[in-house]
Amino acid sequence: MEQANKDRSLVSKVMDGLVTGIVEEKYGAILPPQDVLSKEFDVSRTVMREALSMLLARDMLDVRPKIGTRIRPMSDWRMIDEDVVNWRFRAKPDPMFLRDVIEFRILIEPRAAAQAAARGGAAEIAAIREAFEAFRGIRPGESSYQAADELFHTRIVIASGNQFFRQMAAIIRGALASVNPIMSDRDGLWESALASHQRVVEAIERRDPKDAEMASLALIDSTAEELGGRFSAEPPARV
Amino acid sequence: MEQANKDRSLVSKVMDGLVTGIVEEKYGAILPPQDVLSKEFDVSRTVMREALSMLLARDMLDVRPKIGTRIRPMSDWRMIDEDVVNWRFRAKPDPMFLRDVIEFRILIEPRAAAQAAARGGAAEIAAIREAFEAFRGIRPGESSYQAADELFHTRIVIASGNQFFRQMAAIIRGALASVNPIMSDRDGLWESALASHQRVVEAIERRDPKDAEMASLALIDSTAEELGGRFSAEPPARV
Repeated sequence: MEQANKDRSLVSKVMDGLVTGIVEEKYGAILPPQDVLSKEFDVSRTVMREALSMLLARDMLDVRPKIGTRIRPMSDWRMIDEDVVNWRFRAKPDPMFLRDVIEFRILIEPRAAAQAAARGGAAEIAAIREAFEAFRGIRPGESSYQAADELFHTRIVIASGNQFFRQMAAIIRGALASVNPIMSDRDGLWESALASHQRVVEAIERRDPKDAEMASLALIDSTAEELGGRFSAEPPARV
Repeated sequence: MEQANKDRSLVSKVMDGLVTGIVEEKYGAILPPQDVLSKEFDVSRTVMREALSMLLARDMLDVRPKIGTRIRPMSDWRMIDEDVVNWRFRAKPDPMFLRDVIEFRILIEPRAAAQAAARGGAAEIAAIREAFEAFRGIRPGESSYQAADELFHTRIVIASGNQFFRQMAAIIRGALASVNPIMSDRDGLWESALASHQRVVEAIERRDPKDAEMASLALIDSTAEELGGRFSAEPPARV
């Protein structure tokens, strides 16, 4: 136990030192080789490897064959612990949790759609259209439905261009994974879901932030309604 | 290396198994003792200890003397990796990062303030007032200023009652820590910051969601303006 704790705190110290060097731009784009770093920090290669693997897992580094360990742009650094998100959404959702999920989606997605319309790059917007076309070809019962829906919503958040909004994609995917299976499959529901997705894409393509926001809000609202009278998703308070 | 990787994947497997048991409510409120768990999972006590410490670090468990290892409410499970948030905000901020930070605050805080006004508990609202009174007594140059400001903003997000909004407090604290030091200290700025903080508290106390949202937006806007003409914080698009 004591040895394990000692190793752990040593690894933390090394991680901290590496990150300090990175944010102070001491290393440039590529980290020095592992054995050079272990000497610099005066730790074993095992400890250095452990520290580097913790940073790798957080999308802070990249291993490129023949090039070395590249430092990734800080906007990619993963602030969300996706393990915890996945675990959290694996539990059976209770009404309060569903309310919070819907509120969070209403917070992020309409604004992200508006920003995608206002300043998304052409390639990002084409990627949203592509995800929509794929989604359109799949019925709710099919195994690829969930992934296609997640891709569509993720790409909107990416096209927002804001690195914090982008980080939230993991939570939105969790929300969809937890909500989709409890949606009923009554007639007409899928058609109406498809129509609201389409309205979002088209507003973004038209570069109409207001309509993109409204369409995204309507999409989430219809989900909330379908989830039943357990709670009502209040629209955002207006200033 | 191989041994380390093997241990790591074993720890992951055990974590996953523990979480599965937790979300399926197999253990009740208190986990069985470590040696019982190591036997159940057929792993060494070291591996089990490592897995438990990873869950502890994510606020999923609590060690209570004489009671044992308590499972914390799922809404406490930490979805944000605070190490990465702190590292990310430690770097010298560039204009694009500042823009994203302000946009994110505009996304979260006004809505959180509105919800705090609409449904915050009496104790939560009293805690906001208390944080404001403490903040009021401190001048920007003093060492406790940063912590007091962070506490004020954190308590508003907590009073929103939404577990996802609450998770975002770590990012808001990072934003304040990164923005406050580059605010100028010209005359009158502190007085006006104080006045906008006060307007937020008072609107929440009056249970006026609209005014709370507007006051919170004004507070962030004045920060954005003070940060200079580098970018303008657009107010949220209106539907």
